[in-house]
Amino acid sequence: MKIDGRPWRTIWPAAGGGAVEIIDQTLLPHRFETRRLGTLAEVAHAIRAMLVRGAPLIGATAAYGMAIAMRENPSDGHLAEAYDVLYRTRPTAVNLRWALDDLRTLLAPLPPAERAAAAWARAAAIADEDVEVCRSIGQAGAPLIEAVFVRTGRRVNVLTHCNAGWLATVDWGTALAPIYMAHDRGIPVHVWVDETRPRNQGASLTAFELGAHGVPHTVIADNVGGHLMQHGKVDLCIVGTDRTTARGDVCNKIGTYLKALAAQASNVPFYVALPHPTIDWTIEDGVREIPIEERDPTELTHMTGRLPDGSLATVEIVAPGSPAANYAFDVTPAHLVTGLVTDRGVCPATPDGLASLFPDLAPRR
Amino acid sequence: MKIDGRPWRTIWPAAGGGAVEIIDQTLLPHRFETRRLGTLAEVAHAIRAMLVRGAPLIGATAAYGMAIAMRENPSDGHLAEAYDVLYRTRPTAVNLRWALDDLRTLLAPLPPAERAAAAWARAAAIADEDVEVCRSIGQAGAPLIEAVFVRTGRRVNVLTHCNAGWLATVDWGTALAPIYMAHDRGIPVHVWVDETRPRNQGASLTAFELGAHGVPHTVIADNVGGHLMQHGKVDLCIVGTDRTTARGDVCNKIGTYLKALAAQASNVPFYVALPHPTIDWTIEDGVREIPIEERDPTELTHMTGRLPDGSLATVEIVAPGSPAANYAFDVTPAHLVTGLVTDRGVCPATPDGLASLFPDLAPRR
Repeated sequence: MKIDGRPWRTIWPAAGGGAVEIIDQTLLPHRFETRRLGTLAEVAHAIRAMLVRGAPLIGATAAYGMAIAMRENPSDGHLAEAYDVLYRTRPTAVNLRWALDDLRTLLAPLPPAERAAAAWARAAAIADEDVEVCRSIGQAGAPLIEAVFVRTGRRVNVLTHCNAGWLATVDWGTALAPIYMAHDRGIPVHVWVDETRPRNQGASLTAFELGAHGVPHTVIADNVGGHLMQHGKVDLCIVGTDRTTARGDVCNKIGTYLKALAAQASNVPFYVALPHPTIDWTIEDGVREIPIEERDPTELTHMTGRLPDGSLATVEIVAPGSPAANYAFDVTPAHLVTGLVTDRGVCPATPDGLASLFPDLAPRR
Repeated sequence: MKIDGRPWRTIWPAAGGGAVEIIDQTLLPHRFETRRLGTLAEVAHAIRAMLVRGAPLIGATAAYGMAIAMRENPSDGHLAEAYDVLYRTRPTAVNLRWALDDLRTLLAPLPPAERAAAAWARAAAIADEDVEVCRSIGQAGAPLIEAVFVRTGRRVNVLTHCNAGWLATVDWGTALAPIYMAHDRGIPVHVWVDETRPRNQGASLTAFELGAHGVPHTVIADNVGGHLMQHGKVDLCIVGTDRTTARGDVCNKIGTYLKALAAQASNVPFYVALPHPTIDWTIEDGVREIPIEERDPTELTHMTGRLPDGSLATVEIVAPGSPAANYAFDVTPAHLVTGLVTDRGVCPATPDGLASLFPDLAPRR
């Protein structure tokens, strides 16, 4: 997608070779700075400290990290060490593990002298594949937005939660891909951006990337969506998902479930966008089977932003001494989901719906 | 209620007479400071700048303001001026208008020499009446909490939104009155406190007053309540209301509606506490008939809190240049409300339910 008219990805080979460049997402939306990652240690730090975040981008960064490590030293020992160092950065990230396994399987049988070039080519292919998957999600979802415009002849209002945009992937994003594609095709679209407490990914990242690409949007408190839907101010919701069960329950950022309830109450379509590898075919009942991560309460009690002089500061906002709890995700049951927007098309959030798009993957019933 | 074991109200006559003292709520929860209001101008500033807030407390403060003005100058001209000055501080506050009308009706026929003493006595009576109304709400609601404890034998988890506590009234509060009363009776109760973006009244005021009185509580993001209810971690919800319609729709702080939807989806009782004068018997359909105030977006885009050195700072948290919208209230339809907890008891949120408690006030059908 674009920043001030110039196309960007979230990760790209550095000029001169042997390194990659990334956008330091810890500084967004307050500052836009890129970083050069030229060593295994720098790549591991970038993942661990969340300079890059979002499952697909973490996977691509880890793949490039293996390539950079093989330039440093293509030995069997360093290959094993690179795998371990990168794996430990975010051990629960499924895409990270997948990318590392993919690279190790490719590299281990090769003579050391061939490893760096092979790893580099494979990392670039992983990044390109992610772009294609997200583009396919956009192509599947854009007609949902276009159809509202064709029917109403006015601006289409889409509500989204958290950041499932291009900053979380290599390009396009998942939930935002249909929005970017509709916008680029000339469909008038406006996005209600949930602030997404406690980490504010909506107010910071989603607002930043929509604004940079030129997509009209308005940031709202997470409390507002129900009121907007009651009053016909939302045509459809599109959110991402971290994990989708075989019957279509979706586990996404905390608060997604409340928006799905409001959408159902006001007959607003509620779509969930996902690359199909995030479907977990081994589980059915998301509310019962998916453990919900509790994170550090300081994410809720403290807030970082810009002081009037442009410098950054962190302030504590909760009453002194009051405890806080920070549940990071919730599960939206499939019956609240109008459709799953995948890289193979749109399907109902049901076992049959999923089986129709993924006959090769869905469990036999 | 108590702060560190000592009983407080939110407004009280100053030692020596002729003035009142208040808690400067603009500094909460970061600093606890009281202010002496000894002139009409000081009272008007305290209301306008929200050193006092909450409809009942604003009404009581305005009544004391009239008394203070009559000490300054009991003439007909100053009576009229005091009314106008105080009315202009928060012209949409219903309790403010009611208290000012009450005082003017009392004072206008009196000889000027008798006005100050009469006004002072009436202001004190208005404050005491508010305390009694809130105590009655507590007495009506505490058995709802007690019943859960009797049935389960474990700690009762109550979720609340915004601040409908004693800081918004003279004492006890509305939604929090049943909680304080249950706690003071020895019922083990724990409160999930919604942060309540964008003005953070939960994280700041509700957390402060519950903590100061010794009530166990946990601050959560507004996004969390649905997840907690899905997992049986909420026994009942109690919230306040700014305006209640004749059929039981309630207009309360933005986000209340989303919690009511989640409560219904998980079969969690959802109660709304109110002093009965806030019922608007002239309207039925809250979603259609109640206009929703849009406030300054900087309430969403900027956040004030404590720096590590204890000083206060305001930081901007939204992406630079991104627009924001700030809807302040939403309407929860009566069918999502389990019961209305009033100063005359608990009733269903229906026309018949309200008529059973308020035969003298409800419209004849």
